[in-house]
Amino acid sequence: MPTPKAASSRTPDATRRSERSRRAIYDAALALVVEVGYARTTVEGIASRAGVGKQTIYRWWPSKSAVLLDAYLDLTGQAGQEAQAGREGGEERAEPTGPTAPAGLPDTGDLAADLKAVLRATVDELNDPRFEAPTRALTAEGVIDPELGARFVERLLEPQLRLYVRRLAAARDAGLLRPGADLRVAVELLVGPLTHRWLMRTRPLTHAYADELVDHVLQGIAPR
Amino acid sequence: MPTPKAASSRTPDATRRSERSRRAIYDAALALVVEVGYARTTVEGIASRAGVGKQTIYRWWPSKSAVLLDAYLDLTGQAGQEAQAGREGGEERAEPTGPTAPAGLPDTGDLAADLKAVLRATVDELNDPRFEAPTRALTAEGVIDPELGARFVERLLEPQLRLYVRRLAAARDAGLLRPGADLRVAVELLVGPLTHRWLMRTRPLTHAYADELVDHVLQGIAPR
Repeated sequence: MPTPKAASSRTPDATRRSERSRRAIYDAALALVVEVGYARTTVEGIASRAGVGKQTIYRWWPSKSAVLLDAYLDLTGQAGQEAQAGREGGEERAEPTGPTAPAGLPDTGDLAADLKAVLRATVDELNDPRFEAPTRALTAEGVIDPELGARFVERLLEPQLRLYVRRLAAARDAGLLRPGADLRVAVELLVGPLTHRWLMRTRPLTHAYADELVDHVLQGIAPR
Repeated sequence: MPTPKAASSRTPDATRRSERSRRAIYDAALALVVEVGYARTTVEGIASRAGVGKQTIYRWWPSKSAVLLDAYLDLTGQAGQEAQAGREGGEERAEPTGPTAPAGLPDTGDLAADLKAVLRATVDELNDPRFEAPTRALTAEGVIDPELGARFVERLLEPQLRLYVRRLAAARDAGLLRPGADLRVAVELLVGPLTHRWLMRTRPLTHAYADELVDHVLQGIAPR
């Protein structure tokens, strides 16, 4: 998320105006990519919808893909904060992962329960219309545009996959998993089918499915 | 694949001309969707590139999505025939699956070897530039267009998944798998991570990865 240049020397009002512009730009960018698709979303279109000048956008971002990436990271960051607040407020424990990059996966000592909580939260996020439409629009573009796809993978997907690997490694070090298990492949076996079912809409994406994936994958890497 | 209407009453020359037109239309449709994307591919554009009149296309197909679906099924059908010819010619056994819908999965009695052969052939197909570009273009569109996505899933993906389920069911009936194993979920655990890695380009899609997936999934559904 870019900070307006020289924000420290600005008056509080100017900072508030910048924050309002940034928010308007993010909202416009995500709304446009859902409505007209990535190819027809332009910096001009975002500026016009956000009620700011084109130069305001170019002062903070070099391209439309950079705006969209930040807008999307901001959206998923909000989801992370909401889930965190819910957890701290005593609601069901769930760490958002889907498009979100949380600080770490829960570690209650019960690996299966922790993974199920995380995957169920991902299911909820993917089924939430606020996330579904922009996630589909940007994923689709990443499928055909290798450069854009690589940036999303690097900033969003890989950091999440590493969190899963770290959680599994802790369990392995505690003797709960087979020593030689390939944890990266295990993580892809959790995230891949979930994403595939959602992208292709083959069957409903449910908590029960998330649980089945966890049970299956853990059985494959349990100590022999 | 539509047959020209009243083909039986045509002369051999007219049938050959129809076949040439159909081939030119398929080639033009796939080339265009790769070059300009699904949204900007039009029936007019396909007709112009194929050197036929727009009405020739509308006589055989109701819409651009119908042309594209048939063109793509034709492409993957060719791949299936080539793989079949290779197998019968004594090359390595491999049943194409990826976007192709073969008549059945091999059943040599060695479930792991059969599944590895099929998944390796899918890896080869997804890495083949002839298939990669149109598959990406149409998959991306299916991700954002539920109606188009549903048609591709119904005509291409689900028939393949059912072939895997049938092969696993034969192994289960022979006592090689756990009686209560959910075979549909097992199949998604094979195909989902493979597709996910390819779509997101997280890591190279290799035969070794295909083998790892098979070994992992079979371990999860082995008899206890």
